[in-house]
Amino acid sequence: AEQCKRLAEAPLFHRVIIGLILLNAVAVGLETSTWVTERFGGLLGAINQLILMAFVAEAAVKMAAHGSRPWRYFANGWNCFDFAIIALSLIPAAGPLATLARLVRVLRVLRLVSAFPELRLLVDTLLHSLPGMFHIALLMTIIFYIYGVAGYFLFHDVDPLHWRSLPIALLTLFRIVTLEDWTDVMYTAMESLPWAWLYFVSFVVMGAFVMINLFIGVVLNNLEE
Amino acid sequence: AEQCKRLAEAPLFHRVIIGLILLNAVAVGLETSTWVTERFGGLLGAINQLILMAFVAEAAVKMAAHGSRPWRYFANGWNCFDFAIIALSLIPAAGPLATLARLVRVLRVLRLVSAFPELRLLVDTLLHSLPGMFHIALLMTIIFYIYGVAGYFLFHDVDPLHWRSLPIALLTLFRIVTLEDWTDVMYTAMESLPWAWLYFVSFVVMGAFVMINLFIGVVLNNLEE
Amino acid sequence: AEQCKRLAEAPLFHRVIIGLILLNAVAVGLETSTWVTERFGGLLGAINQLILMAFVAEAAVKMAAHGSRPWRYFANGWNCFDFAIIALSLIPAAGPLATLARLVRVLRVLRLVSAFPELRLLVDTLLHSLPGMFHIALLMTIIFYIYGVAGYFLFHDVDPLHWRSLPIALLTLFRIVTLEDWTDVMYTAMESLPWAWLYFVSFVVMGAFVMINLFIGVVLNNLEE
Amino acid sequence: AEQCKRLAEAPLFHRVIIGLILLNAVAVGLETSTWVTERFGGLLGAINQLILMAFVAEAAVKMAAHGSRPWRYFANGWNCFDFAIIALSLIPAAGPLATLARLVRVLRVLRLVSAFPELRLLVDTLLHSLPGMFHIALLMTIIFYIYGVAGYFLFHDVDPLHWRSLPIALLTLFRIVTLEDWTDVMYTAMESLPWAWLYFVSFVVMGAFVMINLFIGVVLNNLEE
Ligand code: NA
Ligand code: NA
Repeated sequence: AEQCKRLAEAPLFHRVIIGLILLNAVAVGLETSTWVTERFGGLLGAINQLILMAFVAEAAVKMAAHGSRPWRYFANGWNCFDFAIIALSLIPAAGPLATLARLVRVLRVLRLVSAFPELRLLVDTLLHSLPGMFHIALLMTIIFYIYGVAGYFLFHDVDPLHWRSLPIALLTLFRIVTLEDWTDVMYTAMESLPWAWLYFVSFVVMGAFVMINLFIGVVLNNLEE
Repeated sequence: AEQCKRLAEAPLFHRVIIGLILLNAVAVGLETSTWVTERFGGLLGAINQLILMAFVAEAAVKMAAHGSRPWRYFANGWNCFDFAIIALSLIPAAGPLATLARLVRVLRVLRLVSAFPELRLLVDTLLHSLPGMFHIALLMTIIFYIYGVAGYFLFHDVDPLHWRSLPIALLTLFRIVTLEDWTDVMYTAMESLPWAWLYFVSFVVMGAFVMINLFIGVVLNNLEE
Repeated sequence: AEQCKRLAEAPLFHRVIIGLILLNAVAVGLETSTWVTERFGGLLGAINQLILMAFVAEAAVKMAAHGSRPWRYFANGWNCFDFAIIALSLIPAAGPLATLARLVRVLRVLRLVSAFPELRLLVDTLLHSLPGMFHIALLMTIIFYIYGVAGYFLFHDVDPLHWRSLPIALLTLFRIVTLEDWTDVMYTAMESLPWAWLYFVSFVVMGAFVMINLFIGVVLNNLEE
Repeated sequence: AEQCKRLAEAPLFHRVIIGLILLNAVAVGLETSTWVTERFGGLLGAINQLILMAFVAEAAVKMAAHGSRPWRYFANGWNCFDFAIIALSLIPAAGPLATLARLVRVLRVLRLVSAFPELRLLVDTLLHSLPGMFHIALLMTIIFYIYGVAGYFLFHDVDPLHWRSLPIALLTLFRIVTLEDWTDVMYTAMESLPWAWLYFVSFVVMGAFVMINLFIGVVLNNLEE
């Protein structure tokens, strides 16, 4: 255990892991090129196996470093994050879950965040600004839900493409809140219901107003830290 | 009266009301599914009746809690808000106002805001930042009105789709201020009036400039509180 | 002169002027309706003549209030603003300049800004934040000019619609900086010059970066006041 | 050397250089007009030669001003910047690099930034706010890379126009982060993979959240200075 602890804390060990994560990032990037996969597909597969084994060994060493209480490894949220990604990596790359296995290999690049203390701190800070936004997010959810259900009832006959079901209506509202081609949706609705602009303009104004206050919330929370 | 007051202030009473509002939210959400309305339409209608009666009873209890001066119930803005929503709910669900009755049922989800003290506080804060923006909003209104009337006179022959009347012109200007496909409107106008870009670019620059200052106003008002 | 001064400072005089400006605003708004102009065109014309005479009289009274030094009237920037609008109003409403005369009538609504001290203060504050942005606006101008000339040379053969001349290229760049359908312009250019994304992405990033700093400049200038 | 130093520091020398840069700016602007190039093409070419020689002479004088240690000229970053632009200007204007030579002539307008101390200071300030954003930019890069590779694997069969290779996928993601017609890309993907909205909505939310925090980083860095 003592030996594992020393190993887990050695700068060289850390650097090798970062090197493997970067190698993994390059490998999944190269896989997007058919020219490369046709010629070096086998090599990329072998590198993938090697990286997977190295990551499993790394997790084992870090657990062993806690001696007789290996579960302490999970006390750190970032270790849980690493463990989840490694566990998902064990999905067999062939068979029905092949696409999922490939996506997990891409997700392993996220381990770069947990490997660099500065990025870990940054993400921790970003996540800490979330709870302070809970109430305004709840308000936003209520507004979305009300406009979503109302939008379904008002427009699902007129414009089924954008309002055919509650989930699609919510997706359309998300699009409107990003101001993405929102007038196309409005003009289609106004052809049958001329007062439909009331629904859209009120949602854009309210959405923008609440969004701005949500952003200010983020600013203030970050300023205080 | 004393009994009503104790009831109105009981945590259990409060929780039952919140439960009914959530039940109402789920019910209107389920109504968007034809699969559910075909099978459980009667049940949903019964739930709706039950919730309506419960809300009427709640308002009655809260008024009675004020003893010989039930009008004091209306001294609180949020009570007026609840009362308005409940009163609107009494519109008959069948007949010519059926769509309106359904929208009011959706609006009852808004009672979640008045039921949670934190959301009430949040909305109060948001509303309090409005008066400080009165003058800049007035300036924005003057700019919109001038550009709207000028836009009607300049472009209503050229592009009737976007400028055929003053209200439509104002809607088009609102669209331009959200930067939504504003160049489409400009290019159509420039085909006949090549210098039309002056109108649009000046409006975008002025609108953005005043908008930014309006948002800064919101920020400053919120920072002071 | 003393009498004129007392008149110019009388609250009633001020209120009558505001009333006339609002009447003018309603009149130009009603002129956008063919139904109204067909029936009450003559009345609107008479109102217009009345308002014009009242504004000329107002300016004369205010000048006379300065006694033997009427040019002092022009010492106040807002008086110059009013005078310019009134002078432009004397353009004959018939004849070749009819459209211009109508636009000037719309512009008279702007006198609302000079009539309310709060709006005057607000616009003064907004204008005062401009000089502090002089250098960043100059930088933006240099970037626009360089990208405009470069864009003309690179793309005027490929996509004449957006790059056929330097003014049109600058208009296209303004459109890109508002993020309005900028990828359409990029994809057209990339068909012939595959590396054109470099031009567009660098301009969007640089434009956004400088714009954000320009906005922060506005915020800081306003915060200090 | 002493004479060169006095010359380099003379206000007149500085003004002549600024005049030449502005003349260069006007000349490249006029070159965008075929009417002008047909009539005055020779004159513009001569002006270009003159400006180039003047700039070479200016750099020589400034180097000579450092006496026996002319390399000290390069100790100032802005001198390196000027030198690089002048060196690029020596590319022959005719032959295969004609387009490049013309672009370099446009780039010489950038010397305006190095000629005005205020603009130099402004750009220095903007560049100083960059290092503080290193970690958040690194996080953004990781997110872009992961979404880019995942997007290639998920959508390159379905929508080759936007996802046919990793660079094109990254360009598409940049477009989505500017909220430019992002739903068009999403709807195309959703036709084959109905759950594709998860990919797009999560990227928009995450991109916007990280972007806002990046902007706040710029604000805070500038506020501290
Ligand atoms: Na758009
Ligand atoms: Na947009």
